[in-house]
Amino acid sequence: MSAPLGVLVDGQPCAADWPLDRALHYGDGLFETIAVRQGRLRFESLHRARLAEGCRRLGLQVDHGDVWQQTQTLATRHTTCTLKLLVTRGSAVARGYAPSGAERTRVVLLAYPSSSGPELPSRVRVATLEATLGENPALAGIKHCNRLEQVLARLELRSHEHAFEGLMASSSGHLISGTMSNVFLEQDGVLMTPSLERCGIAGVMRAVVLREAAAAGTPVQVKDMPLDIVRRCSGAFLTNARIGVLPVHVLDGRELALSASMQALAGRVSALDG
Amino acid sequence: MSAPLGVLVDGQPCAADWPLDRALHYGDGLFETIAVRQGRLRFESLHRARLAEGCRRLGLQVDHGDVWQQTQTLATRHTTCTLKLLVTRGSAVARGYAPSGAERTRVVLLAYPSSSGPELPSRVRVATLEATLGENPALAGIKHCNRLEQVLARLELRSHEHAFEGLMASSSGHLISGTMSNVFLEQDGVLMTPSLERCGIAGVMRAVVLREAAAAGTPVQVKDMPLDIVRRCSGAFLTNARIGVLPVHVLDGRELALSASMQALAGRVSALDG
Repeated sequence: MSAPLGVLVDGQPCAADWPLDRALHYGDGLFETIAVRQGRLRFESLHRARLAEGCRRLGLQVDHGDVWQQTQTLATRHTTCTLKLLVTRGSAVARGYAPSGAERTRVVLLAYPSSSGPELPSRVRVATLEATLGENPALAGIKHCNRLEQVLARLELRSHEHAFEGLMASSSGHLISGTMSNVFLEQDGVLMTPSLERCGIAGVMRAVVLREAAAAGTPVQVKDMPLDIVRRCSGAFLTNARIGVLPVHVLDGRELALSASMQALAGRVSALDG
Repeated sequence: MSAPLGVLVDGQPCAADWPLDRALHYGDGLFETIAVRQGRLRFESLHRARLAEGCRRLGLQVDHGDVWQQTQTLATRHTTCTLKLLVTRGSAVARGYAPSGAERTRVVLLAYPSSSGPELPSRVRVATLEATLGENPALAGIKHCNRLEQVLARLELRSHEHAFEGLMASSSGHLISGTMSNVFLEQDGVLMTPSLERCGIAGVMRAVVLREAAAAGTPVQVKDMPLDIVRRCSGAFLTNARIGVLPVHVLDGRELALSASMQALAGRVSALDG
């Protein structure tokens, strides 16, 4: 156990606790991005479930009732917004990667205008990126704070003019997701989405699509797929909490169109109250 | 561009800037752990070079002269310590993974007692872990702040009683490093250390060992090696800035011993002024 002897932030002595936060040092935390409508957290139960699963996997002891009460407090104050909920392991008690177990989780909540984030284009262009995702089943699916791969991918996306989103493969060449969204592809009338056992984030809107597709009797294949599926699919849509279900118009320069039944599914999900 | 409408930290409104730091949200930053002796930064030029390489790869604009001046200031104040230097991309200007380019990097410096961190045992036991490292050449080698894999590995290490360090393989089964150290192995009189092209951190002390070995005419093979090399090697040592060169006595329950020439190399490195 060892408190620091001294702390400087931008050259100035700092007595605050936050410079020790393990999320700052190691990305040791989890987050949720939640759409708020009329003061209500959309798909709250799905966000709760994913955060709980993330806490279980990282060994974070969290008072979930308290976290979601704080979240609702901000949603009541900013009734239409995009909420970012960040739960960190808290300030380091000892130096080094190992948590001591005595850390106190820190909850940071940020309310952003619903319009924040990349602007939604009328024509959605998507490019396949060179940037890849490392594979680690222990971290796959959960929304943890190790996101440099996404940061590098968004930097690469700048070289693709007018592209709204980029698709990423894992290190072994499997299509996984967009940089900030999950992806569904249509081929020969079959809807499919990548398995996220290796890496990627199991998006709340992805779960909603899978649920609604099952309810509508539309089979969805969740499976490993090679990256070159992007050259063979006829239609695609992206999902995340902010954009909902967003059909792709152009993928790597190729025009795509969803079949009528997939359009109906997308419409069904978009119309949900959540 | 969008400032948050509201911010809560642990339920309380917060007007400070730090809750927006991109290292907190994405691990979007770099660090160095530096041994300070008599007010001097050990192997400063090597730390400078690695930080500069990390900044280049992540696209961080940093005034390096200023960063190292701040670092020296703290080293002058705490003349024997372990310094942690953290350089983050700074507070988010816009929501989302993409940096706007207008962020201002933040420099956090923490001085810890030299004795902080896991206690050095007289008999060094090392265990091979189940926890793996994702492979991403874009992030390999640099000391960035996405370290959840190391955090999970240290948690796993608790189940190995008396183990000081754990060895990790990459997702494709290649031996990479310890959780907080680099590793050198001896087999049939040949010294070797894993290639870090896929993942892992190119440690400063690892670089020193490679340099000194070359100067001493001791060949070191830097190469891909399967994890089961740990069952065949006759000797091993760990390296990092704090522990220096640390011979391994027991690896997965098997006794190891370095040859006389490797002991001489370890001694030569340990004796360096740095």
